[in-house]
Amino acid sequence: MGRTSTARERLLDAACALMLSRGYGTIGVAEICARAEVKKGSFYHFFESKQALTVEAVNAHWAAQRPAWTAALSAPDTAGEDRLRRLFEDQAAAQHAAKAEHGFVNGCLFGNLALELSGRDEVIQARLAEIFDEQIDLVHAALPDHGRDTARAVLAQLEGMVLFAKLAGDPGLLDNLWDRTAPLLAR
Amino acid sequence: MGRTSTARERLLDAACALMLSRGYGTIGVAEICARAEVKKGSFYHFFESKQALTVEAVNAHWAAQRPAWTAALSAPDTAGEDRLRRLFEDQAAAQHAAKAEHGFVNGCLFGNLALELSGRDEVIQARLAEIFDEQIDLVHAALPDHGRDTARAVLAQLEGMVLFAKLAGDPGLLDNLWDRTAPLLAR
Repeated sequence: MGRTSTARERLLDAACALMLSRGYGTIGVAEICARAEVKKGSFYHFFESKQALTVEAVNAHWAAQRPAWTAALSAPDTAGEDRLRRLFEDQAAAQHAAKAEHGFVNGCLFGNLALELSGRDEVIQARLAEIFDEQIDLVHAALPDHGRDTARAVLAQLEGMVLFAKLAGDPGLLDNLWDRTAPLLAR
Repeated sequence: MGRTSTARERLLDAACALMLSRGYGTIGVAEICARAEVKKGSFYHFFESKQALTVEAVNAHWAAQRPAWTAALSAPDTAGEDRLRRLFEDQAAAQHAAKAEHGFVNGCLFGNLALELSGRDEVIQARLAEIFDEQIDLVHAALPDHGRDTARAVLAQLEGMVLFAKLAGDPGLLDNLWDRTAPLLAR
């Protein structure tokens, strides 16, 4: 029983790690199973397809990240801008940590999959859109004097700069990112 | 002779179209050849690998786009902000056209490949980084009173919003994008 639930979690962890480093298209069920040390025959006991596993891996990744987002964006006695500064600092720190551990910048799993799979896989695309909508809502709640478009623009700046950091292999591009993003709140 | 040079061009066009719609990982040489109506045996006469073809396809795509960038960003008797407005309007129009023609938002070929291949393919990654550096230089030249970091932030805003437009399947998210990006020039 414990073994069973561990296998499911290992499959999710393996899928998440592989997709962060290599995207979706070139990763197969066999490789995910090998990394998770789960027999391929057992895979379909837990997930009906690679697509189904991916949705669950995305859900697990967001479930793991969301508490840090809500903590940063609802810190008491903190102005909206400072909450966003903390969120952006957290994001930069995560990319620095990935670089230190793996030697490259992972980028954002949701952004990576969004560009790879939009127009190709409606199920995963829809789930990613929901997660970004939730992120926009969280940012918007920290910026009550601004419209939702501004919250989306703030996250677009984060996603765009994470793209450049991943391409350059340089998480330093995310340092002080909030100072360069804050002017978006001006209008 | 004419036939030969047409085949190379058809391979580049096919690779570009397939990669815009489906990314890099799941596309093989056989599929590119089939779409280009070129025999697979001929492929290696023109390109030594899918990687080599991709670099050339990326180069051809940027060679086709660059004139519009330079036209927008060096329009005479036009202020820097208005030049950038035109560039952003061009980008939005291209995504609207893709949606009208194919039913989905292509996004940016360079951004799509950057997130899919960074950390996986150093050759393509390096070429994409050069193209983005050139784009940043073009934007920077239109904003002589600003630092290069500001030019990068402007392009990050474009890439981030193109990501959201692709994910939502809605090029309308790019309408009036310059008005929401211009505040980045404030500081």
